[in-house]
Amino acid sequence: MKERRTPTFSRWKVKGSLIKLVYFSTNSDDSSSSNDSLAASNGDRGSPVLEGKLHFAKFETQKINDCIDFIRSKQLRLTGSEQHGASGSAKCVIKATGGGAFKYADLFKEKLGISLDKADEMDCLVAGANFLLKAVHPEAFTYMGGQKEFVKIDHEDLYPYLLVNIGSGVSMIKVDGPGKFERVSGTNVGGGTFWGLGKLLTKCKNFDELLELSHQGNNRVIDMLVGDIYGGMDYTKIGLVSTAIACSFGKAISDNKELEDYKPEDISRSLLRMISNNIGQISYLNALRFGLKRIFFAGFFIRGHAYTMDTIAVAVHFWSKGEAKAMFLKHEGFLGALGSFMSYEKHGFEDLKVHQSVQQSPVGASLGGDKSHDPPNGDLNENQSIDCSVYLSQ
Amino acid sequence: MKERRTPTFSRWKVKGSLIKLVYFSTNSDDSSSSNDSLAASNGDRGSPVLEGKLHFAKFETQKINDCIDFIRSKQLRLTGSEQHGASGSAKCVIKATGGGAFKYADLFKEKLGISLDKADEMDCLVAGANFLLKAVHPEAFTYMGGQKEFVKIDHEDLYPYLLVNIGSGVSMIKVDGPGKFERVSGTNVGGGTFWGLGKLLTKCKNFDELLELSHQGNNRVIDMLVGDIYGGMDYTKIGLVSTAIACSFGKAISDNKELEDYKPEDISRSLLRMISNNIGQISYLNALRFGLKRIFFAGFFIRGHAYTMDTIAVAVHFWSKGEAKAMFLKHEGFLGALGSFMSYEKHGFEDLKVHQSVQQSPVGASLGGDKSHDPPNGDLNENQSIDCSVYLSQ
Repeated sequence: MKERRTPTFSRWKVKGSLIKLVYFSTNSDDSSSSNDSLAASNGDRGSPVLEGKLHFAKFETQKINDCIDFIRSKQLRLTGSEQHGASGSAKCVIKATGGGAFKYADLFKEKLGISLDKADEMDCLVAGANFLLKAVHPEAFTYMGGQKEFVKIDHEDLYPYLLVNIGSGVSMIKVDGPGKFERVSGTNVGGGTFWGLGKLLTKCKNFDELLELSHQGNNRVIDMLVGDIYGGMDYTKIGLVSTAIACSFGKAISDNKELEDYKPEDISRSLLRMISNNIGQISYLNALRFGLKRIFFAGFFIRGHAYTMDTIAVAVHFWSKGEAKAMFLKHEGFLGALGSFMSYEKHGFEDLKVHQSVQQSPVGASLGGDKSHDPPNGDLNENQSIDCSVYLSQ
Repeated sequence: MKERRTPTFSRWKVKGSLIKLVYFSTNSDDSSSSNDSLAASNGDRGSPVLEGKLHFAKFETQKINDCIDFIRSKQLRLTGSEQHGASGSAKCVIKATGGGAFKYADLFKEKLGISLDKADEMDCLVAGANFLLKAVHPEAFTYMGGQKEFVKIDHEDLYPYLLVNIGSGVSMIKVDGPGKFERVSGTNVGGGTFWGLGKLLTKCKNFDELLELSHQGNNRVIDMLVGDIYGGMDYTKIGLVSTAIACSFGKAISDNKELEDYKPEDISRSLLRMISNNIGQISYLNALRFGLKRIFFAGFFIRGHAYTMDTIAVAVHFWSKGEAKAMFLKHEGFLGALGSFMSYEKHGFEDLKVHQSVQQSPVGASLGGDKSHDPPNGDLNENQSIDCSVYLSQ
């Protein structure tokens, strides 16, 4: 199976900032695990199995040509179907979801001769989340006070849950089972608002730079705290401590300062806190509305960024008076792309089994401002990849 | 009663942007109505009555000296108590609530020899709202598609309701009856965020100027709409029309533009829409949570501004799928100050009766961008005043 390449899928973030790619490659030199798995699977299924890895890559949409070169260089194409009798046309198809699937169809056809087969975004997000929560461990974790704690998911007690996908905008999806879900809410104040407003306010050149800045900033410089209003005192009667934010960017009202007089770090921090807190609050209110115990936050806005997760977790804790807990996903940004991967049946791809848990990335990586997520070639570091088998229908 | 002046109260917006003043003046030359009322009241109550008007004024906190001059020039002081046997000290007291009551106590003592008697802000907001909703008609109105429609409030069926006070920050209060309430939620993304961020982004010099700008702006220049993502199409499966905002300020991500390349009007419009929509959504979710049918929006953020009310109303309509209706209050910005007014019992002020409904301000006034709210001397135009009687205890 040395030469074989199997399905690859790219997915454009609906709200247009990132391209995510999930692709599978076989283990060309790991015969032992391959044989083990083959034996097992032949016994179980009598269908051919590819042993390999799922890889994850992302590209900024404006650098779409890097993505196309990446696909070409890795010779990523749909060959699984060739071997397994799907129609000839199928071999030139890539599953895609999100707005880019509409926007860039022509470009892909022209540059790679590949047609984009559109999959519904919500379907893909949910399929991706269900796959990660069921098949991969460790995947879900809580984040509090700088501590990342992986959570063992009870497969029998997974549903219902609230999936909050924070892309440029935010979708809140009540998931009741495989393929059973409803988008119950959302907000237009999301990652794209952080990046868009942040770009205008700080002149940062990219999202990660802005996120990095926030790490060094102090929101109290610009936010008006309860203590600023009540002469340093809490407003205990309504349960507001003096350090709570009464009004994001409220100090800018009274300060005789121009935009240039504020440090970009502080602006970025206030912006991140405002948006993360708002998303946490609206998410909790929706979980409460439908009696959902679990809220999983995903989407590339988070980027494993400690302060983002901490703010969301604190918001959920605050608004739920400690009754609800925010959980995060290790492969947070790839739900849609993974979901596309799941939808390949008709192209000969039948099933995906993860038979070895993915190596856990150290907490430090996320505290460090998440460099691991943005390597030059778009590829994520290996500890993000997932060892798995792909079962192909005959 | 020519010379007599009665209690006056000033109130600082908690989050520090505005000072609101409510004061009462007697009708020095309206003997007939005065006599009528006196006669009636003597029969009923045997206590002296002052016939007059409640006036409303506001000042920017940074222009606090204008406020102090205004109080001095109008000779506003607490003389009601002198005539009615309250302690001598009481005559130099002004009821105040909000953060300013802490911040400016010394200044008032020094400049006017008046002590600020602090009243709890939530108590005052609720007392003010209950007074307006019960005593004044027309007061509450709905706003849809540019149409202002006054609502008759059934006094027997007023409670419970959700009071959303949008100041610099936002408080959401579940009101179950007179003095019976709980602050159930709120958001730190409020009027101060609009003004603070707006000031940084547009260099506007005051809140009303920024609000005015938004009136001429187009949010589609900066906001990313669902249609921008899905090639002009709706995302009908999840009920999002192509014109819905997918991501506030999302276009700033992909546009190769600097802040200076955007028109302040468009920025202000996007900002106003982002914040109004967010407040509407969180308010509805809280009304839903407690099964509240009515949501009243107040606070000086609104300023009778058509587009603000329209966005809030549309948000409540959208998120409630038409089941909830946003209502607004004519004296939106004076709830706290009115509430302070209600708390003067121990100073000889016993009861306040509105015996003539306040003249309705024309719809045009709010569509016109609410000039009526900001006259140079801080006084509101006469059609905002309320004819009433003040009963004084012996």
